Amino acid sequence: MDLLGLLHLDELSHGLANMSMFPFFDMAHYIVSILALREQPGALEVSRVSPLACWFSSMLFCFGGAVLSAVMLAEPVVAPLSNSTGVLLASITWYLVFYCPMDLVYSCAALLPLRLVLSGMKEVTRTWKVLGGVAQAHGKYKDSLLVMIAIGWAKGAGGGLISNFEQLVRGVWKPETNELLKMSYPTKITLIGAVLFALQQTHYLPLRTHHLMLVYTVFTVVNKSRMMLTGSSGSPFAVIELAIYKTLFTGHSPYAALTGEVKKACLDRGETNGTASPAGTKEKTTPVPPVKGGRGSLKAKEESEDADATNCKKIN
Amino acid sequence: MDLLGLLHLDELSHGLANMSMFPFFDMAHYIVSILALREQPGALEVSRVSPLACWFSSMLFCFGGAVLSAVMLAEPVVAPLSNSTGVLLASITWYLVFYCPMDLVYSCAALLPLRLVLSGMKEVTRTWKVLGGVAQAHGKYKDSLLVMIAIGWAKGAGGGLISNFEQLVRGVWKPETNELLKMSYPTKITLIGAVLFALQQTHYLPLRTHHLMLVYTVFTVVNKSRMMLTGSSGSPFAVIELAIYKTLFTGHSPYAALTGEVKKACLDRGETNGTASPAGTKEKTTPVPPVKGGRGSLKAKEESEDADATNCKKIN
Amino acid sequence: MDLLGLLHLDELSHGLANMSMFPFFDMAHYIVSILALREQPGALEVSRVSPLACWFSSMLFCFGGAVLSAVMLAEPVVAPLSNSTGVLLASITWYLVFYCPMDLVYSCAALLPLRLVLSGMKEVTRTWKVLGGVAQAHGKYKDSLLVMIAIGWAKGAGGGLISNFEQLVRGVWKPETNELLKMSYPTKITLIGAVLFALQQTHYLPLRTHHLMLVYTVFTVVNKSRMMLTGSSGSPFAVIELAIYKTLFTGHSPYAALTGEVKKACLDRGETNGTASPAGTKEKTTPVPPVKGGRGSLKAKEESEDADATNCKKIN
Repeated sequence: MDLLGLLHLDELSHGLANMSMFPFFDMAHYIVSILALREQPGALEVSRVSPLACWFSSMLFCFGGAVLSAVMLAEPVVAPLSNSTGVLLASITWYLVFYCPMDLVYSCAALLPLRLVLSGMKEVTRTWKVLGGVAQAHGKYKDSLLVMIAIGWAKGAGGGLISNFEQLVRGVWKPETNELLKMSYPTKITLIGAVLFALQQTHYLPLRTHHLMLVYTVFTVVNKSRMMLTGSSGSPFAVIELAIYKTLFTGHSPYAALTGEVKKACLDRGETNGTASPAGTKEKTTPVPPVKGGRGSLKAKEESEDADATNCKKIN
Repeated sequence: MDLLGLLHLDELSHGLANMSMFPFFDMAHYIVSILALREQPGALEVSRVSPLACWFSSMLFCFGGAVLSAVMLAEPVVAPLSNSTGVLLASITWYLVFYCPMDLVYSCAALLPLRLVLSGMKEVTRTWKVLGGVAQAHGKYKDSLLVMIAIGWAKGAGGGLISNFEQLVRGVWKPETNELLKMSYPTKITLIGAVLFALQQTHYLPLRTHHLMLVYTVFTVVNKSRMMLTGSSGSPFAVIELAIYKTLFTGHSPYAALTGEVKKACLDRGETNGTASPAGTKEKTTPVPPVKGGRGSLKAKEESEDADATNCKKIN
Repeated sequence: MDLLGLLHLDELSHGLANMSMFPFFDMAHYIVSILALREQPGALEVSRVSPLACWFSSMLFCFGGAVLSAVMLAEPVVAPLSNSTGVLLASITWYLVFYCPMDLVYSCAALLPLRLVLSGMKEVTRTWKVLGGVAQAHGKYKDSLLVMIAIGWAKGAGGGLISNFEQLVRGVWKPETNELLKMSYPTKITLIGAVLFALQQTHYLPLRTHHLMLVYTVFTVVNKSRMMLTGSSGSPFAVIELAIYKTLFTGHSPYAALTGEVKKACLDRGETNGTASPAGTKEKTTPVPPVKGGRGSLKAKEESEDADATNCKKIN
């Protein structure tokens, strides 16, 4: 990429590409991941009731990507445990975040300036993980772009993708939502990264590896910092996403009217009930929004029903 | 099998055995599978809320057998994704069925005559899948009939067997039912096919492979067509099943009276409560029918309770 | 270990180490496991509704350890099925326990003296399984103590660790509890065994293998018998556990007061609501005890709420 060469960024990108993630960046990843676990509802109680379940959950937060990609490639899922140094570092972090006297470690790490730095460093590790996953899949399945994207995505965003099962370890079960139904920002940015690196590795994207690493890393770090500072959780791709969605996925089916209103369950219900079902859908369609179809937890159900009721009142 | 030879069916069976599933039969399998997904309650809403979850669900419907058998044999579960042509065909089908302008593709494919042909072709692919699974297991575990049956069954009926987890992708969780607790017709016919092919491969069944393929294929296609035309969902083996069940699985236990009445929860309750528990069952036994034991969804619960109440009134 | 040598126990330990588990000890393991399944709430009803689901559940009770360790090491999960003799023995046991005329087999096996002997023999198989798992992991991951412990634990207590998924086969789903959140006695003793054997195999524990086998086997058998005879389910390590817990996992966090009272949800609630949340926990924390967070089953919920209500009345 000549532009980068002109800007004298070539050395910078080489330097970045040769940087070792161990120990500082890995450590930042462990800290930020375990802070995120601690801030899950109910996680602190679990840490008192069963330190072992809490530890196992922490390891899934830290090594979820390695575990998921191992499952997908039929490699031993215990392999991450054989990385003794990593597990030791993550375990010490887990202990200090949850059980440190006076809660010192958590209080410090949760301070915005420190957390900003740690989160930025964690974003850097994402680049390495995605690239590692894509390269590993490239070695096994030469010509399959889809496998490369899948493994790169799994390595980089594994913790999120397996969150249903991670929650199960803590006794929480929320079938009505998952990262495929409603993607969070980290999962989305990792998917984009996996696509880019897969295209780059198969030479569809005319970029050198270390240049793409620099661009992607800078983008993720800057964007993460911006989101933390402004407190916004909006995706920077919202406009593009909406355009793609409107172009490709609305069609002219009897359900097209749903498009702009997927969140208004009441309206959905009215329309669904009022419209003749298309031929073949003989089963009674559940008129509730699909993301709440599972109803694993009564609490979630109650909340969703409350929300529905409120919406209905506003509309009718 | 001399009978087939006499009937000049030998060439026909050879012709069938040498027929390629790609592309027409595979295509029919994808279309029928994705139609089935679209007709699941809530699937259309998911297709609007999250095209990615819908696509992933479709791939599980189309390649569920390959995924499940890969898990069972510790082979990479991403392998089906590396079959680029298959995934591409299935993805195009998915897109057209869910998002085609004017809903043209779904409306056409759901017409009875076309659907009858497509379903027949899909049944043909079942023979190939079951045989493929049995042969693959035969190569790895020479003398294990059970492994051969298990892999053949998984390959042929994988989509159904993993339905709990496929539903989870769409945010639906129904723990109270699965294909082992209440087998559907396709799962049953695939199990029978897997047993037959396993017996044939180990020479317990004195038949040539292509003859068995012909017989099994004709049986499944004819039976499927009959079921679609008459709208019956009754298994053609109901009589045999009941005879086997009554002979083997009723015993003379205190619960024997349950046998003929497994569906009448009221009666079950009365008897269970009235009978002394056998020694050892100290836990409070739940007097509700086990297929509803899980109670994952409140809705399912309510429905089941309504049904119970109705039954009770009828009986008492 | 000179002490054992002095006591002339060397020959005994050699004899034990060379003893074959097949067929008598394996048989005892199958019988005790399937008795335990039959005594699960709802299992008898499942055995009438779907013998296949019941058989599959029984196999998971009998071979759960082999299945779980196969998953963890990326070996075929169908491998246990290829052990034809074992599966045949377990299947015969399953049939006799659930469907024997007059319920003779269950009535006999459930008699205390016979059950005591069978349970003792089952405990002996635990030693072999744990050692087998540790040795297998030692062969693959030379220097990783954690992997050795994990595989030994999985082999020895697999049935318990995968109980969530075993229950799912029977249509039961209890996400609010699992063996990591609330360890049962067999899971705990197996974990201790796995730790001891892993330390022994890596020479951190200066003991000969057959000596450790003798000591561990005697301890588990004696302890199991004691528990069955006294009807106590208390762990013999309760004091040590409490000491470790108090030392390591209480900290001085705002939640420290929870420590001694993790079971009294009412008090927890009051304190949690009354205490300022630590910085960062912006999500609404669920004030219910985490082990019940999932609420997969309405029944469980009702029971837990009853219990809560009772506690509240006692306290307030």
